[in-house]
Amino acid sequence: MALIIAKFGGTSVADIQRIENAASKVVREVEAGNKVVVVVSAMSGVTNKLVEYCAQISPMHDLREYDTVVSSGEQVTAGLMAMALQKHGVVARSWLGWQIPIVTDNVHGKARIENIDTNELQKRLDDGEVAVIPGFQGVTGLGRVATLGRGGSDTSAVAMAAALGADRCDIYTDVSGVYTADPRIVPAARKINKIAYEEMLELASLGSKVLQTRSVEMGAKNGVPIQVLSSFDDEIGSDRKGTLVTTEGSIVEAELVSGIAHSSDESKITVLGVRDVPGIAARLFEPLAKAAVNVDMIIQNISADGLTDMTFTVPRAESALAVKTLEKDVDLTYDKITVNDNVSKVSVVGIGMKSHAGVANTMFRTLAEKNINIQVISTSEIKISILIEEDYTELAVRSLHAAYGLDDTDKIA
Amino acid sequence: MALIIAKFGGTSVADIQRIENAASKVVREVEAGNKVVVVVSAMSGVTNKLVEYCAQISPMHDLREYDTVVSSGEQVTAGLMAMALQKHGVVARSWLGWQIPIVTDNVHGKARIENIDTNELQKRLDDGEVAVIPGFQGVTGLGRVATLGRGGSDTSAVAMAAALGADRCDIYTDVSGVYTADPRIVPAARKINKIAYEEMLELASLGSKVLQTRSVEMGAKNGVPIQVLSSFDDEIGSDRKGTLVTTEGSIVEAELVSGIAHSSDESKITVLGVRDVPGIAARLFEPLAKAAVNVDMIIQNISADGLTDMTFTVPRAESALAVKTLEKDVDLTYDKITVNDNVSKVSVVGIGMKSHAGVANTMFRTLAEKNINIQVISTSEIKISILIEEDYTELAVRSLHAAYGLDDTDKIA
Repeated sequence: MALIIAKFGGTSVADIQRIENAASKVVREVEAGNKVVVVVSAMSGVTNKLVEYCAQISPMHDLREYDTVVSSGEQVTAGLMAMALQKHGVVARSWLGWQIPIVTDNVHGKARIENIDTNELQKRLDDGEVAVIPGFQGVTGLGRVATLGRGGSDTSAVAMAAALGADRCDIYTDVSGVYTADPRIVPAARKINKIAYEEMLELASLGSKVLQTRSVEMGAKNGVPIQVLSSFDDEIGSDRKGTLVTTEGSIVEAELVSGIAHSSDESKITVLGVRDVPGIAARLFEPLAKAAVNVDMIIQNISADGLTDMTFTVPRAESALAVKTLEKDVDLTYDKITVNDNVSKVSVVGIGMKSHAGVANTMFRTLAEKNINIQVISTSEIKISILIEEDYTELAVRSLHAAYGLDDTDKIA
Repeated sequence: MALIIAKFGGTSVADIQRIENAASKVVREVEAGNKVVVVVSAMSGVTNKLVEYCAQISPMHDLREYDTVVSSGEQVTAGLMAMALQKHGVVARSWLGWQIPIVTDNVHGKARIENIDTNELQKRLDDGEVAVIPGFQGVTGLGRVATLGRGGSDTSAVAMAAALGADRCDIYTDVSGVYTADPRIVPAARKINKIAYEEMLELASLGSKVLQTRSVEMGAKNGVPIQVLSSFDDEIGSDRKGTLVTTEGSIVEAELVSGIAHSSDESKITVLGVRDVPGIAARLFEPLAKAAVNVDMIIQNISADGLTDMTFTVPRAESALAVKTLEKDVDLTYDKITVNDNVSKVSVVGIGMKSHAGVANTMFRTLAEKNINIQVISTSEIKISILIEEDYTELAVRSLHAAYGLDDTDKIA
């Protein structure tokens, strides 16, 4: 008998039919002898609509009220899911964030969970009751409803798994698992059976939107095995057919490279001729941070004549804001700022590359053979990212996928 | 300075524009120096959709989960209303049922309020803060969300007024007040300036759906003046242009008749030839009560040969259920059951008739002049109700409205 958290995302509970379908998976887990805590997202589209309402009233709205409004979507799904389970004869009830309680800090709109009181839940799980918990929400020490930021239901699920010492956290979504590349671009992409938290973090932050980054961090910190699987396939979590995100040590034979990620939502900004003095990076990026611009890659070239060029990437939607912020900064001296909205980022990720040379070389050689120019390179322990001209994104991803031996030969044949 | 409860119904908060419009009325009350508690319904259509979701999953769903689901609509509006008020510089916050708390009994789906803790609210009102409260919801002693039954936001508002000792409870709706008859049928209908609780109760239960019956009862019991007014007109509650529901004593010159109500949603059922023995009424109506059939008028004619005919009315949608229930009752002896779905009920209501003779006679003479046959008569202290053939409803209402001198002569001219 295992204790399992089963989290269903928005598309998995998009309508009554899908809620019933999700419920039937939970029923199968219960029938297999497992204790189950269900975590649900809002029906797809609902949260966006509620966020839009708040934005319509005021872009500068009170985030405490925002949380009161947007948390309601998950509340609805939790009640409906409990009903759907009861229809199958399963003893189930919904537990709102304040009822458990799931206590968060006071940072409304993107609160962090501080504590989960599991006493009552644990008792009821032992009695065979299924708990249905709305994701995304908690309650502050001051008794206000708080939400965990977009995608926060993943974090709710993993936090619940950690607090209850669950055997596994199953994240049901609209894909069958984590793939070696986006299957829409690379038809030969394979589903990954096991992936390390660190790799998943790199993939999650690189545009593979399967899991919220924070949930993966939390899983890694607490050693919660997270399984990503499809709610539309017939299997349930206990069939173990999805992608298991787990510790590096439990992956016996790590691939050299686990996957190729890409993101076309990038802008490259270069500030030319800034003075190369200590503290210049902080000087440049502090105003951007204050303006809530998400700076991703940062590359500083060597300097000449005491001047250097600073290049960085931001999400494309924020490039105008970034440039305006720097131009307004009267104390910053530079020659000029150039912006290129026509770039995309391609990354090769794999814990195997820690102990292997030549991974970067394969990347550079492969792209050279296709005449794809690399504009910027940035590396970490388990990742190499490059910026290229956007038009070459798909060609680059497909070529790299083949070059690292990731292609599913069955799919090609 | 007065303490006012301002309740906005579903059509008054149907979209963001209307929420902002409602907020601006609250702002005007605040600027006039009043303390204000705002009670809001769900945006129109939302509750119906949520109820439908629950019904789709199971007609026999857990009412505790039903309450968790359907209470979310008011939660959304409360947060949005607080934001809209803040935009005008008013200090405001939402208070969910469990945050106050508004404690109810455990009868989910139609809970009754047992207690409201007003300490914190009162303190904040004294500091000039506006409280925004989702109507329809409370929390049970067991910590589950409970709802007060459809239309329950009126009850929330009046209960809050009673608990806080408010000077007035303003119910903003989509009509300008309570009318002497349905203006769609009687163009000469007048808005009533003051009406007694007892009259409003008769009108509310007679199909004039302006106020939930329970809220009027609660207003009467606690002496809360309730004002019905339109959220679409330019005025605010303090302009006193709506209909004030108040104690009989405060209405200086009571009209003989306050209004003519009608309901076409009626079925007349007659059980012919039941044995006229003590307890026969209980014998007949107990199974109907158990089947949740809402019996309204009951008329027993005098008996002959130890047999009598029992006539009663039920909502048209329940007539088939009523007949089936009686037919299934093997211990009940009768000759036959007749059903007439082609009737409507017309009622003359007025506290003035307590002390005046001739009110009934005017009714009967007026209908006789129009050749309208009265099928059944039932009277109370302040009401005379009759059943007539449905086709004559509008003619009857218009004729009675004129006969009792209720026509607004300006509108006729």
